[in-house]
Amino acid sequence: MEITLVPKISTPRPLSVATVQFEPIVGESARNLAAINRLVRIAKADGADIVVLPELAVSGYNFRDAEEVEALSGAVPGGPGADVLCQLAAELSIYVVSGIAERDGGRFYNSAMICGPQGFIGKYRKLHLWNNEHRYFEKGNIGLPVFDLPFGRVGIAICYDGWFPETFRSLALAGAELVCVPTNWVPMAGAESVAEPMANILHKAAAHSNGMFIACADRTGTERGQRFIGRSLIIGPDGWPISGPASADREEILLAKIDLSSVAETRALNSFNHLLGDRRADVYG
Amino acid sequence: MEITLVPKISTPRPLSVATVQFEPIVGESARNLAAINRLVRIAKADGADIVVLPELAVSGYNFRDAEEVEALSGAVPGGPGADVLCQLAAELSIYVVSGIAERDGGRFYNSAMICGPQGFIGKYRKLHLWNNEHRYFEKGNIGLPVFDLPFGRVGIAICYDGWFPETFRSLALAGAELVCVPTNWVPMAGAESVAEPMANILHKAAAHSNGMFIACADRTGTERGQRFIGRSLIIGPDGWPISGPASADREEILLAKIDLSSVAETRALNSFNHLLGDRRADVYG
Repeated sequence: MEITLVPKISTPRPLSVATVQFEPIVGESARNLAAINRLVRIAKADGADIVVLPELAVSGYNFRDAEEVEALSGAVPGGPGADVLCQLAAELSIYVVSGIAERDGGRFYNSAMICGPQGFIGKYRKLHLWNNEHRYFEKGNIGLPVFDLPFGRVGIAICYDGWFPETFRSLALAGAELVCVPTNWVPMAGAESVAEPMANILHKAAAHSNGMFIACADRTGTERGQRFIGRSLIIGPDGWPISGPASADREEILLAKIDLSSVAETRALNSFNHLLGDRRADVYG
Repeated sequence: MEITLVPKISTPRPLSVATVQFEPIVGESARNLAAINRLVRIAKADGADIVVLPELAVSGYNFRDAEEVEALSGAVPGGPGADVLCQLAAELSIYVVSGIAERDGGRFYNSAMICGPQGFIGKYRKLHLWNNEHRYFEKGNIGLPVFDLPFGRVGIAICYDGWFPETFRSLALAGAELVCVPTNWVPMAGAESVAEPMANILHKAAAHSNGMFIACADRTGTERGQRFIGRSLIIGPDGWPISGPASADREEILLAKIDLSSVAETRALNSFNHLLGDRRADVYG
Protein backbone atom coordinates (compact mmCIF):
# COMPACT_ATOMS: atom_id res chain seq x y z
CA MET A 1 0.00 0.00 0.00
CA GLU A 2 1.29 3.41 -0.96
CA ILE A 3 0.44 6.36 1.22
CA THR A 4 0.96 9.91 0.10
CA LEU A 5 2.42 11.70 3.10
CA VAL A 6 2.37 15.15 1.57
CA PRO A 7 -0.80 15.73 -0.43
CA LYS A 8 -0.29 16.67 -4.03
CA ILE A 9 -1.93 19.86 -5.20
CA SER A 10 -5.23 18.37 -6.21
CA THR A 11 -8.08 19.40 -8.45
CA PRO A 12 -11.29 20.12 -6.54
CA ARG A 13 -13.87 17.35 -6.88
CA PRO A 14 -17.06 19.02 -5.67
CA LEU A 15 -20.07 16.86 -4.99
CA SER A 16 -23.48 17.16 -3.33
CA VAL A 17 -24.33 14.23 -1.06
CA ALA A 18 -27.85 13.62 0.21
CA THR A 19 -29.21 11.19 2.78
CA VAL A 20 -32.89 10.25 2.71
CA GLN A 21 -34.46 9.47 6.09
CA PHE A 22 -37.93 7.95 5.86
CA GLU A 23 -40.11 5.15 7.21
CA PRO A 24 -40.29 2.02 5.06
CA ILE A 25 -43.14 -0.35 5.91
CA VAL A 26 -42.16 -4.01 6.10
CA GLY A 27 -43.78 -6.04 3.35
CA GLU A 28 -44.93 -3.07 1.27
CA SER A 29 -42.23 -2.91 -1.38
CA ALA A 30 -44.33 -1.04 -3.95
CA ARG A 31 -45.22 1.64 -1.42
CA ASN A 32 -41.59 1.89 -0.27
CA LEU A 33 -40.33 2.21 -3.84
CA ALA A 34 -42.90 4.96 -4.44
CA ALA A 35 -41.61 6.84 -1.38
CA ILE A 36 -38.03 6.36 -2.58
CA ASN A 37 -38.97 7.60 -6.05
CA ARG A 38 -40.58 10.72 -4.56
CA LEU A 39 -37.71 11.47 -2.15
CA VAL A 40 -34.83 10.85 -4.57
CA ARG A 41 -36.49 13.27 -7.01
CA ILE A 42 -36.62 15.92 -4.29
CA ALA A 43 -32.95 15.32 -3.48
CA LYS A 44 -32.08 15.61 -7.16
CA ALA A 45 -34.05 18.87 -7.42
CA ASP A 46 -32.08 20.13 -4.39
CA GLY A 47 -28.86 19.47 -6.31
CA ALA A 48 -27.77 16.05 -5.04
CA ASP A 49 -25.25 14.09 -7.11
CA ILE A 50 -25.43 11.00 -4.90
CA VAL A 51 -28.29 9.92 -2.62
CA VAL A 52 -28.02 7.43 0.25
CA LEU A 53 -31.13 5.48 1.36
CA PRO A 54 -31.60 3.41 4.53
CA GLU A 55 -30.80 -0.26 5.09
CA LEU A 56 -33.40 -2.64 3.60
CA ALA A 57 -35.21 0.43 2.28
CA VAL A 58 -37.28 -1.51 -0.26
CA SER A 59 -38.44 -4.42 1.93
CA GLY A 60 -38.55 -3.04 5.48
CA TYR A 61 -36.59 -4.61 8.30
CA ASN A 62 -38.44 -6.57 10.94
CA PHE A 63 -39.35 -9.74 9.07
CA ARG A 64 -41.91 -12.18 10.47
CA ASP A 65 -40.23 -15.33 9.14
CA ALA A 66 -38.02 -16.78 6.41
CA GLU A 67 -40.91 -16.95 3.96
CA GLU A 68 -41.42 -13.22 4.24
CA VAL A 69 -37.71 -12.61 3.64
CA GLU A 70 -37.89 -14.78 0.53
CA ALA A 71 -40.95 -12.94 -0.77
CA LEU A 72 -39.31 -9.52 -0.21
CA SER A 73 -35.86 -10.32 -1.64
CA GLY A 74 -34.66 -10.15 -5.22
CA ALA A 75 -31.61 -10.51 -7.38
CA VAL A 76 -29.09 -7.65 -7.29
CA PRO A 77 -28.97 -6.64 -10.07
CA GLY A 78 -31.93 -7.97 -11.97
CA GLY A 79 -34.61 -8.23 -9.28
CA PRO A 80 -37.60 -5.90 -9.42
CA GLY A 81 -36.45 -3.59 -6.57
CA ALA A 82 -32.92 -3.30 -7.95
CA ASP A 83 -34.24 -2.58 -11.42
CA VAL A 84 -36.51 0.24 -10.23
CA LEU A 85 -33.59 1.86 -8.41
CA CYS A 86 -31.31 1.55 -11.43
CA GLN A 87 -33.93 3.04 -13.75
CA LEU A 88 -34.47 5.94 -11.36
CA ALA A 89 -30.73 6.66 -11.16
CA ALA A 90 -30.41 6.52 -14.94
CA GLU A 91 -33.44 8.74 -15.55
CA LEU A 92 -32.25 11.38 -13.07
CA SER A 93 -28.56 10.98 -13.92
CA ILE A 94 -27.75 10.57 -10.24
CA TYR A 95 -25.97 8.01 -8.07
CA VAL A 96 -28.14 6.03 -5.64
CA VAL A 97 -26.91 3.87 -2.76
CA SER A 98 -29.64 1.80 -1.13
CA GLY A 99 -30.00 -1.06 1.28
CA ILE A 100 -31.83 -3.99 -0.31
CA ALA A 101 -32.69 -7.60 0.58
CA GLU A 102 -30.75 -9.72 -1.90
CA ARG A 103 -31.60 -13.21 -3.08
CA ASP A 104 -28.81 -15.23 -4.67
CA GLY A 105 -30.11 -18.71 -5.46
CA GLY A 106 -31.28 -20.07 -2.11
CA ARG A 107 -29.22 -17.62 -0.09
CA PHE A 108 -30.18 -14.21 1.20
CA TYR A 109 -28.02 -11.20 2.08
CA ASN A 110 -28.61 -7.88 3.82
CA SER A 111 -27.03 -5.96 0.94
CA ALA A 112 -26.59 -2.47 -0.42
CA MET A 113 -26.31 -1.60 -4.08
CA ILE A 114 -24.99 1.40 -5.96
CA CYS A 115 -26.29 2.49 -9.33
CA GLY A 116 -25.71 5.58 -11.42
CA PRO A 117 -26.42 7.31 -14.71
CA GLN A 118 -25.23 4.20 -16.60
CA GLY A 119 -27.22 1.78 -14.41
CA PHE A 120 -26.01 -0.85 -11.93
CA ILE A 121 -22.46 -0.35 -10.59
CA GLY A 122 -21.95 -2.80 -7.73
CA LYS A 123 -23.05 -4.14 -4.39
CA TYR A 124 -21.94 -4.86 -0.85
CA ARG A 125 -23.17 -7.59 1.51
CA LYS A 126 -23.32 -6.68 5.21
CA LEU A 127 -20.40 -8.30 7.03
CA HIS A 128 -21.63 -7.95 10.60
CA LEU A 129 -25.22 -9.15 11.03
CA TRP A 130 -27.28 -7.88 13.96
CA ASN A 131 -29.39 -10.13 16.17
CA ASN A 132 -32.29 -11.80 14.30
CA GLU A 133 -30.72 -10.96 10.94
CA HIS A 134 -28.72 -14.13 11.61
CA ARG A 135 -31.96 -16.11 11.21
CA TYR A 136 -32.55 -14.86 7.69
CA PHE A 137 -29.32 -13.70 6.09
CA GLU A 138 -25.88 -15.09 5.33
CA LYS A 139 -22.88 -13.07 6.45
CA GLY A 140 -21.35 -10.94 3.70
CA ASN A 141 -18.87 -12.79 1.52
CA ILE A 142 -17.69 -10.18 -0.97
CA GLY A 143 -15.47 -8.12 1.32
CA LEU A 144 -15.55 -4.33 1.51
CA PRO A 145 -15.54 -3.10 -2.09
CA VAL A 146 -14.58 0.46 -3.00
CA PHE A 147 -16.17 1.91 -6.14
CA ASP A 148 -14.30 4.28 -8.44
CA LEU A 149 -16.77 6.97 -9.41
CA PRO A 150 -16.04 10.06 -11.49
CA PHE A 151 -15.87 12.27 -8.38
CA GLY A 152 -13.94 9.89 -6.15
CA ARG A 153 -13.77 6.55 -4.35
CA VAL A 154 -16.83 5.41 -2.43
CA GLY A 155 -17.29 2.55 0.04
CA ILE A 156 -20.42 1.17 1.70
CA ALA A 157 -21.09 -0.04 5.24
CA ILE A 158 -24.42 -1.08 6.78
CA CYS A 159 -25.58 -0.31 10.35
CA TYR A 160 -23.85 -2.70 12.82
CA ASP A 161 -20.78 -2.69 10.54
CA GLY A 162 -20.20 0.71 12.12
CA TRP A 163 -19.60 -0.87 15.54
CA PHE A 164 -16.36 -2.30 14.10
CA PRO A 165 -13.71 0.36 13.56
CA GLU A 166 -12.05 -2.14 11.22
CA THR A 167 -14.84 -1.53 8.69
CA PHE A 168 -13.95 2.11 8.14
CA ARG A 169 -10.22 1.54 8.48
CA SER A 170 -10.28 -1.20 5.85
CA LEU A 171 -12.28 1.02 3.49
CA ALA A 172 -9.89 3.93 4.06
CA LEU A 173 -6.86 1.73 3.40
CA ALA A 174 -8.58 0.53 0.21
CA GLY A 175 -8.85 4.15 -0.90
CA ALA A 176 -12.38 5.17 0.14
CA GLU A 177 -12.88 8.93 0.50
CA LEU A 178 -16.62 8.74 1.21
CA VAL A 179 -18.43 5.91 2.96
CA CYS A 180 -22.19 5.65 2.42
CA VAL A 181 -24.02 4.01 5.32
CA PRO A 182 -27.54 2.72 4.74
CA THR A 183 -28.69 1.95 8.28
CA ASN A 184 -31.58 0.95 10.54
CA TRP A 185 -30.20 2.06 13.91
CA VAL A 186 -32.09 0.71 16.89
CA PRO A 187 -31.95 2.12 20.43
CA MET A 188 -28.86 0.94 22.34
CA ALA A 189 -29.01 -0.11 25.99
CA GLY A 190 -28.08 2.82 28.21
CA ALA A 191 -28.22 5.28 25.32
CA GLU A 192 -31.75 6.57 25.91
CA SER A 193 -31.03 9.21 28.52
CA VAL A 194 -28.62 11.23 26.45
CA ALA A 195 -29.04 13.73 23.68
CA GLU A 196 -26.69 12.08 21.20
CA PRO A 197 -27.06 8.45 20.14
CA MET A 198 -23.93 6.29 20.30
CA ALA A 199 -24.39 5.56 16.58
CA ASN A 200 -23.61 9.21 15.83
CA ILE A 201 -20.57 9.17 18.11
CA LEU A 202 -19.15 6.02 16.50
CA HIS A 203 -19.36 7.51 13.02
CA LYS A 204 -17.91 10.88 14.06
CA ALA A 205 -14.95 9.00 15.54
CA ALA A 206 -14.59 6.87 12.39
CA ALA A 207 -14.67 9.91 10.09
CA HIS A 208 -12.09 11.73 12.23
CA SER A 209 -9.66 8.87 12.73
CA ASN A 210 -9.75 7.98 9.02
CA GLY A 211 -10.01 11.52 7.68
CA MET A 212 -12.93 10.76 5.40
CA PHE A 213 -16.55 11.67 4.71
CA ILE A 214 -19.32 9.43 6.06
CA ALA A 215 -22.99 9.79 5.07
CA CYS A 216 -25.46 7.84 7.24
CA ALA A 217 -29.10 7.43 6.08
CA ASP A 218 -31.24 6.01 8.86
CA ARG A 219 -34.93 5.13 8.95
CA THR A 220 -37.63 6.20 11.39
CA GLY A 221 -40.73 4.60 12.87
CA THR A 222 -41.61 1.49 14.84
CA GLU A 223 -42.02 -1.81 13.01
CA ARG A 224 -43.71 -4.72 14.80
CA GLY A 225 -42.47 -3.35 18.11
CA GLN A 226 -38.95 -2.47 16.93
CA ARG A 227 -38.25 1.24 17.17
CA PHE A 228 -35.67 3.02 14.98
CA ILE A 229 -33.90 6.21 16.01
CA GLY A 230 -33.51 8.41 12.92
CA ARG A 231 -30.63 10.89 13.48
CA SER A 232 -29.16 10.53 9.99
CA LEU A 233 -26.07 12.65 9.51
CA ILE A 234 -23.33 13.58 7.07
CA ILE A 235 -19.87 13.94 8.61
CA GLY A 236 -16.75 15.66 7.29
CA PRO A 237 -13.21 14.25 7.36
CA ASP A 238 -12.47 16.19 10.56
CA GLY A 239 -15.21 14.19 12.30
CA TRP A 240 -17.79 16.97 12.70
CA PRO A 241 -21.28 16.87 11.19
CA ILE A 242 -21.68 19.01 8.08
CA SER A 243 -25.38 18.22 7.77
CA GLY A 244 -27.68 16.94 10.51
CA PRO A 245 -28.09 15.06 12.67
CA ALA A 246 -31.69 14.80 11.51
CA SER A 247 -34.63 14.42 13.89
CA ALA A 248 -35.43 11.12 15.56
CA ASP A 249 -38.79 10.63 13.91
CA ARG A 250 -39.42 12.73 10.80
CA GLU A 251 -38.91 12.19 7.09
CA GLU A 252 -35.89 14.36 6.23
CA ILE A 253 -33.41 14.86 3.42
CA LEU A 254 -29.96 16.05 4.46
CA LEU A 255 -27.74 17.66 1.84
CA ALA A 256 -24.06 18.57 2.03
CA LYS A 257 -21.77 20.09 -0.56
CA ILE A 258 -18.41 18.42 -0.16
CA ASP A 259 -15.09 18.14 -1.98
CA LEU A 260 -13.44 14.74 -1.91
CA SER A 261 -10.07 16.27 -2.76
CA SER A 262 -9.97 17.51 0.85
CA VAL A 263 -9.54 13.97 2.15
CA ALA A 264 -5.86 13.64 1.27
CA GLU A 265 -5.15 17.04 2.80
CA THR A 266 -7.02 16.21 6.01
CA ARG A 267 -5.09 12.99 6.48
CA ALA A 268 -1.70 14.73 6.28
CA LEU A 269 -1.82 16.30 9.76
CA ASN A 270 1.60 17.96 9.90
CA SER A 271 5.13 17.38 8.66
CA PHE A 272 5.48 14.31 10.91
CA ASN A 273 2.01 12.79 11.06
CA HIS A 274 -0.37 11.09 8.63
CA LEU A 275 -3.59 9.47 9.86
CA LEU A 276 -3.02 6.30 7.83
CA GLY A 277 0.76 6.41 7.54
CA ASP A 278 1.22 6.50 11.33
CA ARG A 279 -0.43 3.09 11.81
CA ARG A 280 1.70 0.51 13.62
CA ALA A 281 0.58 -2.56 11.71
CA ASP A 282 3.70 -4.27 13.07
CA VAL A 283 2.10 -4.23 16.52
CA TYR A 284 -1.69 -4.49 16.19
CA GLY A 285 -3.32 -7.74 17.30
CA MET B 1 -7.71 -16.41 20.75
CA GLU B 2 -10.61 -17.71 22.80
CA ILE B 3 -13.67 -15.54 23.18
CA THR B 4 -16.36 -16.28 25.72
CA LEU B 5 -19.63 -15.74 23.87
CA VAL B 6 -21.84 -16.28 26.89
CA PRO B 7 -20.38 -14.66 29.98
CA LYS B 8 -19.83 -16.96 32.89
CA ILE B 9 -21.43 -15.95 36.16
CA SER B 10 -18.59 -13.91 37.51
CA THR B 11 -17.50 -12.67 40.90
CA PRO B 12 -17.74 -8.89 41.25
CA ARG B 13 -14.37 -7.15 41.08
CA PRO B 14 -15.11 -3.67 42.43
CA LEU B 15 -12.51 -0.98 42.03
CA SER B 16 -12.22 2.77 42.41
CA VAL B 17 -10.41 4.48 39.52
CA ALA B 18 -9.16 8.06 39.74
CA THR B 19 -7.72 10.38 37.12
CA VAL B 20 -5.59 13.32 38.19
CA GLN B 21 -5.77 16.40 35.96
CA PHE B 22 -3.16 19.04 36.76
CA GLU B 23 -0.60 21.34 35.18
CA PRO B 24 2.97 20.02 35.09
CA ILE B 25 5.65 22.66 34.40
CA VAL B 26 8.26 21.65 31.85
CA GLY B 27 11.68 21.29 33.40
CA GLU B 28 10.48 21.39 37.02
CA SER B 29 10.50 17.71 37.91
CA ALA B 30 10.76 18.21 41.64
CA ARG B 31 7.81 20.58 41.64
CA ASN B 32 5.79 18.21 39.44
CA LEU B 33 6.57 15.24 41.67
CA ALA B 34 5.46 17.27 44.68
CA ALA B 35 2.15 18.04 42.97
CA ILE B 36 1.76 14.35 42.07
CA ASN B 37 2.51 13.37 45.65
CA ARG B 38 -0.13 15.78 46.96
CA LEU B 39 -2.80 14.78 44.41
CA VAL B 40 -2.32 11.01 44.63
CA ARG B 41 -2.70 11.27 48.42
CA ILE B 42 -6.01 13.09 47.94
CA ALA B 43 -7.19 10.44 45.48
CA LYS B 44 -6.21 7.71 47.95
CA ALA B 45 -8.09 9.49 50.75
CA ASP B 46 -11.11 9.61 48.42
CA GLY B 47 -10.93 5.84 48.09
CA ALA B 48 -9.01 5.33 44.86
CA ASP B 49 -7.42 1.93 44.22
CA ILE B 50 -5.71 3.02 41.01
CA VAL B 51 -4.73 6.54 39.96
CA VAL B 52 -3.96 7.67 36.41
CA LEU B 53 -1.69 10.69 35.84
CA PRO B 54 -1.11 12.65 32.60
CA GLU B 55 1.44 11.98 29.85
CA LEU B 56 4.98 13.11 30.73
CA ALA B 57 3.63 14.17 34.12
CA VAL B 58 7.06 14.34 35.76
CA SER B 59 8.99 16.22 33.07
CA GLY B 60 6.40 18.37 31.32
CA TYR B 61 5.81 18.15 27.57
CA ASN B 62 7.01 20.97 25.36
CA PHE B 63 10.78 20.44 25.38
CA ARG B 64 13.16 23.10 24.09
CA ASP B 65 15.72 20.69 22.66
CA ALA B 66 17.27 17.24 22.92
CA GLU B 67 19.48 18.32 25.80
CA GLU B 68 16.43 19.21 27.86
CA VAL B 69 14.84 15.82 27.07
CA GLU B 70 18.02 14.11 28.21
CA ALA B 71 18.11 16.10 31.43
CA LEU B 72 14.48 15.34 32.22
CA SER B 73 14.45 11.61 31.37
CA GLY B 74 15.38 8.68 33.56
CA ALA B 75 15.48 4.90 33.65
CA VAL B 76 12.15 3.12 34.09
CA PRO B 77 12.42 1.59 36.61
CA GLY B 78 15.42 2.90 38.51
CA GLY B 79 15.48 6.57 37.55
CA PRO B 80 14.66 9.20 40.14
CA GLY B 81 11.13 9.98 38.86
CA ALA B 82 10.17 6.32 38.54
CA ASP B 83 11.52 5.59 42.01
CA VAL B 84 9.49 8.37 43.63
CA LEU B 85 6.31 7.09 41.96
CA CYS B 86 7.02 3.50 43.06
CA GLN B 87 7.70 4.55 46.63
CA LEU B 88 4.48 6.57 46.72
CA ALA B 89 2.43 3.61 45.40
CA ALA B 90 4.01 1.27 47.92
CA GLU B 91 3.53 3.65 50.86
CA LEU B 92 -0.15 4.26 50.01
CA SER B 93 -0.78 0.66 48.86
CA ILE B 94 -2.27 1.99 45.64
CA TYR B 95 -1.70 1.47 41.90
CA VAL B 96 -0.29 4.44 39.98
CA VAL B 97 -0.14 4.79 36.17
CA SER B 98 1.90 7.78 35.02
CA GLY B 99 3.40 9.16 31.87
CA ILE B 100 7.17 9.56 32.17
CA ALA B 101 10.11 10.43 29.92
CA GLU B 102 12.22 7.28 29.75
CA ARG B 103 15.92 7.01 29.06
CA ASP B 104 17.27 3.65 27.94
CA GLY B 105 20.97 4.02 27.16
CA GLY B 106 21.14 6.69 24.47
CA ARG B 107 17.49 6.28 23.47
CA PHE B 108 14.45 8.10 24.79
CA TYR B 109 10.80 7.04 24.91
CA ASN B 110 7.52 8.78 25.70
CA SER B 111 6.55 6.06 28.18
CA ALA B 112 4.06 5.27 30.88
CA MET B 113 4.74 3.10 33.90
CA ILE B 114 2.55 1.24 36.34
CA CYS B 115 3.53 0.58 39.93
CA GLY B 116 1.63 -0.81 42.90
CA PRO B 117 1.83 -1.85 46.53
CA GLN B 118 4.79 -4.14 45.71
CA GLY B 119 6.59 -1.50 43.62
CA PHE B 120 7.30 -1.38 39.88
CA ILE B 121 5.05 -3.56 37.68
CA GLY B 122 5.72 -2.63 34.08
CA LYS B 123 5.82 0.01 31.39
CA TYR B 124 4.52 0.94 27.94
CA ARG B 125 6.28 3.01 25.26
CA LYS B 126 4.04 5.24 23.12
CA LEU B 127 3.55 3.66 19.70
CA HIS B 128 2.22 6.68 17.83
CA LEU B 129 4.33 9.80 18.35
CA TRP B 130 2.78 13.20 17.79
CA ASN B 131 4.51 15.99 15.84
CA ASN B 132 7.73 17.24 17.51
CA GLU B 133 7.88 14.18 19.74
CA HIS B 134 9.52 12.59 16.69
CA ARG B 135 12.50 14.89 17.25
CA TYR B 136 13.15 13.56 20.74
CA PHE B 137 11.67 10.11 21.18
CA GLU B 138 11.90 6.70 19.55
CA LYS B 139 8.66 5.01 18.58
CA GLY B 140 7.49 2.40 21.08
CA ASN B 141 9.05 -1.03 20.61
CA ILE B 142 7.47 -3.13 23.35
CA GLY B 143 3.99 -3.54 21.87
CA LEU B 144 0.78 -3.03 23.85
CA PRO B 145 1.27 -4.91 27.13
CA VAL B 146 -1.66 -5.90 29.33
CA PHE B 147 -0.99 -6.16 33.06
CA ASP B 148 -2.67 -8.78 35.24
CA LEU B 149 -3.59 -7.01 38.45
CA PRO B 150 -5.57 -8.49 41.36
CA PHE B 151 -8.77 -6.74 40.23
CA GLY B 152 -8.42 -7.32 36.49
CA ARG B 153 -6.46 -6.77 33.30
CA VAL B 154 -5.19 -3.28 32.57
CA GLY B 155 -3.68 -1.80 29.41
CA ILE B 156 -2.11 1.59 28.75
CA ALA B 157 -2.32 3.98 25.80
CA ILE B 158 -0.91 7.50 25.51
CA CYS B 159 -2.61 10.49 23.83
CA TYR B 160 -2.28 10.20 20.01
CA ASP B 161 -2.45 6.39 20.37
CA GLY B 162 -6.16 7.06 20.86
CA TRP B 163 -6.49 8.29 17.26
CA PHE B 164 -5.87 4.70 16.17
CA PRO B 165 -8.82 2.41 16.89
CA GLU B 166 -6.38 -0.47 16.52
CA THR B 167 -4.81 0.54 19.85
CA PHE B 168 -7.93 -0.19 21.90
CA ARG B 169 -8.95 -3.15 19.76
CA SER B 170 -5.54 -4.78 20.20
CA LEU B 171 -5.68 -4.22 23.95
CA ALA B 172 -9.21 -5.65 24.14
CA LEU B 173 -8.18 -8.73 22.15
CA ALA B 174 -5.23 -9.15 24.52
CA GLY B 175 -7.69 -9.21 27.43
CA ALA B 176 -7.69 -5.62 28.71
CA GLU B 177 -10.80 -4.66 30.70
CA LEU B 178 -9.58 -1.18 31.66
CA VAL B 179 -7.29 1.04 29.59
CA CYS B 180 -5.51 3.85 31.42
CA VAL B 181 -4.69 6.82 29.18
CA PRO B 182 -2.09 9.33 30.37
CA THR B 183 -2.50 12.14 27.87
CA ASN B 184 -1.57 15.70 26.90
CA TRP B 185 -4.42 16.49 24.48
CA VAL B 186 -3.85 19.59 22.37
CA PRO B 187 -6.55 21.53 20.50
CA MET B 188 -7.47 19.91 17.18
CA ALA B 189 -8.08 21.96 14.03
CA GLY B 190 -11.78 22.67 13.65
CA ALA B 191 -12.57 21.45 17.14
CA GLU B 192 -12.61 24.80 18.87
CA SER B 193 -16.18 25.83 18.13
CA VAL B 194 -17.84 22.86 19.73
CA ALA B 195 -18.62 21.91 23.29
CA GLU B 196 -17.07 18.45 23.20
CA PRO B 197 -13.46 17.84 22.14
CA MET B 198 -12.89 15.14 19.52
CA ALA B 199 -10.55 13.43 22.01
CA ASN B 200 -13.56 12.69 24.23
CA ILE B 201 -15.60 11.40 21.27
CA LEU B 202 -12.81 9.06 20.13
CA HIS B 203 -12.51 7.47 23.56
CA LYS B 204 -16.27 7.11 24.04
CA ALA B 205 -16.40 5.29 20.70
CA ALA B 206 -13.44 3.09 21.67
CA ALA B 207 -14.98 2.17 25.03
CA HIS B 208 -18.32 1.34 23.40
CA SER B 209 -17.04 -0.67 20.45
CA ASN B 210 -14.71 -2.68 22.69
CA GLY B 211 -17.00 -2.91 25.72
CA MET B 212 -14.34 -1.77 28.17
CA PHE B 213 -13.51 0.94 30.68
CA ILE B 214 -11.21 3.80 29.64
CA ALA B 215 -9.76 6.33 32.09
CA CYS B 216 -8.14 9.40 30.50
CA ALA B 217 -6.01 11.75 32.62
CA ASP B 218 -5.21 14.94 30.73
CA ARG B 219 -3.18 17.98 31.72
CA THR B 220 -4.10 21.67 31.67
CA GLY B 221 -2.27 24.91 31.04
CA THR B 222 -0.18 26.45 28.28
CA GLU B 223 3.48 25.49 27.99
CA ARG B 224 5.79 27.61 25.81
CA GLY B 225 2.81 28.51 23.62
CA GLN B 226 1.28 25.03 23.49
CA ARG B 227 -2.16 24.90 25.06
CA PHE B 228 -3.67 21.72 26.53
CA ILE B 229 -7.39 21.09 26.77
CA GLY B 230 -8.09 19.26 30.05
CA ARG B 231 -11.44 17.40 29.80
CA SER B 232 -10.20 14.24 31.51
CA LEU B 233 -12.89 11.58 31.72
CA ILE B 234 -13.65 8.04 32.85
CA ILE B 235 -15.84 6.03 30.49
CA GLY B 236 -17.85 2.86 31.09
CA PRO B 237 -18.00 -0.17 28.77
CA ASP B 238 -21.22 1.13 27.20
CA GLY B 239 -19.27 4.20 26.01
CA TRP B 240 -20.83 6.79 28.30
CA PRO B 241 -18.84 8.88 30.79
CA ILE B 242 -19.18 7.69 34.38
CA SER B 243 -17.05 10.54 35.74
CA GLY B 244 -16.30 13.83 34.02
CA PRO B 245 -15.49 15.20 31.58
CA ALA B 246 -13.49 17.53 33.79
CA SER B 247 -13.09 21.24 33.09
CA ALA B 248 -10.75 22.54 30.41
CA ASP B 249 -8.44 24.40 32.74
CA ARG B 250 -8.66 23.39 36.40
CA GLU B 251 -6.84 20.90 38.60
CA GLU B 252 -9.38 18.11 39.16
CA ILE B 253 -9.53 14.56 40.41
CA LEU B 254 -12.21 12.35 38.87
CA LEU B 255 -13.26 9.21 40.72
CA ALA B 256 -15.42 6.32 39.53
CA LYS B 257 -16.43 3.13 41.30
CA ILE B 258 -16.43 0.41 38.67
CA ASP B 259 -16.64 -3.39 38.47
CA LEU B 260 -14.42 -5.01 35.86
CA SER B 261 -16.56 -8.16 35.90
CA SER B 262 -19.14 -6.14 33.93
CA VAL B 263 -16.89 -6.09 30.86
CA ALA B 264 -17.58 -9.68 29.78
CA GLU B 265 -21.32 -9.14 30.23
CA THR B 266 -21.28 -5.90 28.24
CA ARG B 267 -19.48 -7.52 25.31
CA ALA B 268 -22.09 -10.30 24.99
CA LEU B 269 -24.81 -8.17 23.39
CA ASN B 270 -27.49 -10.78 22.76
CA SER B 271 -27.76 -14.47 21.87
CA PHE B 272 -26.28 -13.79 18.41
CA ASN B 273 -23.81 -10.95 18.92
CA HIS B 274 -20.52 -10.44 20.75
CA LEU B 275 -18.52 -7.24 20.32
CA LEU B 276 -15.24 -9.08 19.83
CA GLY B 277 -16.57 -12.38 18.51
CA ASP B 278 -18.40 -10.69 15.63
CA ARG B 279 -15.18 -9.35 14.10
CA ARG B 280 -14.55 -10.36 10.49
CA ALA B 281 -10.80 -10.73 10.66
CA ASP B 282 -11.06 -12.74 7.43
CA VAL B 283 -11.97 -9.51 5.62
CA TYR B 284 -10.25 -6.58 7.31
CA GLY B 285 -7.42 -4.90 5.42
